[in-house]
Amino acid sequence: MLPWRDITAFEQNLRASIPLVEHLGFRQLRYDGCRFEIDAALAPNHNDKGTAFAGSLSASANLCGWSAITLLLESEEQAYDVVIRDGRQEYFLPVTRDFCVATVLPEPELVDRFLLKLRERGKARMDLVVEVQEQGQLCFRQSAAYVALRRKRWV
Amino acid sequence: MLPWRDITAFEQNLRASIPLVEHLGFRQLRYDGCRFEIDAALAPNHNDKGTAFAGSLSASANLCGWSAITLLLESEEQAYDVVIRDGRQEYFLPVTRDFCVATVLPEPELVDRFLLKLRERGKARMDLVVEVQEQGQLCFRQSAAYVALRRKRWV
Repeated sequence: MLPWRDITAFEQNLRASIPLVEHLGFRQLRYDGCRFEIDAALAPNHNDKGTAFAGSLSASANLCGWSAITLLLESEEQAYDVVIRDGRQEYFLPVTRDFCVATVLPEPELVDRFLLKLRERGKARMDLVVEVQEQGQLCFRQSAAYVALRRKRWV
Repeated sequence: MLPWRDITAFEQNLRASIPLVEHLGFRQLRYDGCRFEIDAALAPNHNDKGTAFAGSLSASANLCGWSAITLLLESEEQAYDVVIRDGRQEYFLPVTRDFCVATVLPEPELVDRFLLKLRERGKARMDLVVEVQEQGQLCFRQSAAYVALRRKRWV
């Protein structure tokens, strides 16, 4: 496994630019250049049944995938915006405790192809799966398509 | 169109039982027995681009569908829990201002079939589409399957 990178600045920027993040109970964000994880507390994310609110899981999953791609693009010369185009969520089991939302970037060849297309055309798509497991059982899965777009310069 | 019902008690209960609701900028909830709408402010829901955060839209859409079914079941003798089983979101256009998340219950025959199955078997599924439009253009759509389950009695 690759070493976790210091993403303090990224987290601060995330919290500053998306107000809802402050209310999703994120305790720690981790990124090793391939895997991105968010540890979140159940308390601010519970539903009427005391388990994790589906909307908290889907919002956290959106951010998890978005963050993985945004961090991947930090080393690019150009600036890019990352947006989610579509997503599918499956809720298999209730999440009954603090949880970890995690995704893994595609294999290096696919990442290289994504970056090449992005540099050439200014736009490229990446599919990511985000999961939440509890005691080895899959509780939640999001499969989503993200698009990175070259940021427009306002002159 | 049917008259809007007073759902103050429902809204208070929703806010009390799902903490994230307090941070989703909901201004008004409306239900006429068929259509359920949530007016939400953009300010607490913006993303890094100043438009609506995808996670806010999906969380609000989850609640919109969940609320429509929960309110439908209020007049039933039995108590039921409503959960989302799976959902699909499509993000067509950025939402650039305060927005309205809206869904409509299926036609009466399908609602009757859902209620009959629920009373007989203690479990039934309903598919709902939730949309956000801006100036007549569809910006966001969630198609989701919800399941209602007879609430267990803890003796």
